[in-house]
Amino acid sequence: MTLLGTGAMGTALGRAWLAAGHPLTVWNRTPGRTAALTAEGAVAAGSAAEAVAANRLVVACLLDDASVGAALDSAELAGRDLVNLTTGTPADARERAAWAEKRGARFLDGGIMAVPPMIGAPGAFVLYSGDAELFEEHRAALAVPAATEYVGADPGLAALQDVALLSAMYGMFAGVTHAFALLRGTRVAPGDFAALLVPWLNAMAGTAEETAGRLSSGDYTTGVVSHLGMQVAGSGTLLRTAGEQGVSTELLTPFLDLMRERAAAGHATEDTTGLVDLLRTR
Amino acid sequence: MTLLGTGAMGTALGRAWLAAGHPLTVWNRTPGRTAALTAEGAVAAGSAAEAVAANRLVVACLLDDASVGAALDSAELAGRDLVNLTTGTPADARERAAWAEKRGARFLDGGIMAVPPMIGAPGAFVLYSGDAELFEEHRAALAVPAATEYVGADPGLAALQDVALLSAMYGMFAGVTHAFALLRGTRVAPGDFAALLVPWLNAMAGTAEETAGRLSSGDYTTGVVSHLGMQVAGSGTLLRTAGEQGVSTELLTPFLDLMRERAAAGHATEDTTGLVDLLRTR
Repeated sequence: MTLLGTGAMGTALGRAWLAAGHPLTVWNRTPGRTAALTAEGAVAAGSAAEAVAANRLVVACLLDDASVGAALDSAELAGRDLVNLTTGTPADARERAAWAEKRGARFLDGGIMAVPPMIGAPGAFVLYSGDAELFEEHRAALAVPAATEYVGADPGLAALQDVALLSAMYGMFAGVTHAFALLRGTRVAPGDFAALLVPWLNAMAGTAEETAGRLSSGDYTTGVVSHLGMQVAGSGTLLRTAGEQGVSTELLTPFLDLMRERAAAGHATEDTTGLVDLLRTR
Repeated sequence: MTLLGTGAMGTALGRAWLAAGHPLTVWNRTPGRTAALTAEGAVAAGSAAEAVAANRLVVACLLDDASVGAALDSAELAGRDLVNLTTGTPADARERAAWAEKRGARFLDGGIMAVPPMIGAPGAFVLYSGDAELFEEHRAALAVPAATEYVGADPGLAALQDVALLSAMYGMFAGVTHAFALLRGTRVAPGDFAALLVPWLNAMAGTAEETAGRLSSGDYTTGVVSHLGMQVAGSGTLLRTAGEQGVSTELLTPFLDLMRERAAAGHATEDTTGLVDLLRTR
């Protein structure tokens, strides 16, 4: 197989394939950066076109979507199976799929849910969308560096869910950042607090299942235990505590404001599910 | 024991104590709301002062700190052990502790990390801080409705960590809300996405342990895999995807802006830990 792009992630992927016995042709825009993989048995191609010519399965793991277009501009793609692990938006993936198919290639987009050290270890997974036959044919090779999760034929679906997972993660990081800031300068050891925080976040993450159920049913009120009216009333304690501890509320207020807005619009007996709809009406 | 306040949470706590065989005197500002507990064997007192006089251990679970002061204004607190499960800020707890001790009571503050239906079931816990001897003496009774976690003699520490956990939770909810909004109007079923999201959040929650370690050591760069410079570069994909899907970025941008600010201030090779410090300098 061929691997285009040997940055930190490409190198981690390539190492996993080499270790599993897959012959590998590699190319990188800055040639020196293929050295780690050629030392382990990969063959470096002189150009992206040459790398693409060497194998039917071509995996791209480049900086951004524009880099994919630039690298493959002069390559012969007819008959090739292009697996694009380059990060991009759903629209990038759809346009790249149409571009590749027009040039005679099959196309599969992938979103890697891992950082390079996680590649080859349990927990890493890649979301795939696009050509289902391509996915099935190369499934065993694709499963070497990380678990595979095929999410549909629309090539944009992997990027969409990749970005959705990352966005959710940044929300959690924002909450964690605010929480640690509250404890800064107190006698609470960060590690002691983390021992409470991690199981708490794990327990609360489970409520996303309930949110999903409510989004599907459209019923945001039945069985709600902690409704928006109560949560808005309780939010004052969060803001006053931030004030006492000298912590900016900038990471906290956007969500609290959204809760207040939704509650004031006649939805005080709902849980937070309706905020999903609110985010799409502005 | 005595329970002041029989709202949804007080009633859940009272039920757990009654079921475990603890004789219970109850009081509520609106007398009718004690009916659920008196039907199960609790004795309703005619006033808060009368309820306090009935038992040495007095648990308050009221609307807010001002309600605690109002309810106990005319009660004789000398010799009483006051356990305050009313939600408030760390300063509220410290002031209430001084107020109670001045009146001859021992004082323990508690932060309930559960909603009422979780009381008496595994997973619920209460953070306690304040008088350690009070906590030890009544530990068995306190452990009936929820697991106990004593976090220190400073009465403000339970409220501080309670609010920190809730703030982290709201950050996660903000991320989850944005993620579901991205998928609204697509063919991705919310339940299918939740099946990816929950394990992903659980895996990412573990990074709080690493953040805690960095906050303790002061080293924000050694061994960083995904540094701020890379994350800022990647954040454009998140914002462009929100634009493609018609989702407001208001829940996402505050954290991304903070990352950009920290990276631009010469910290591009750090991970996100330094944002904790940034939140305290404004």
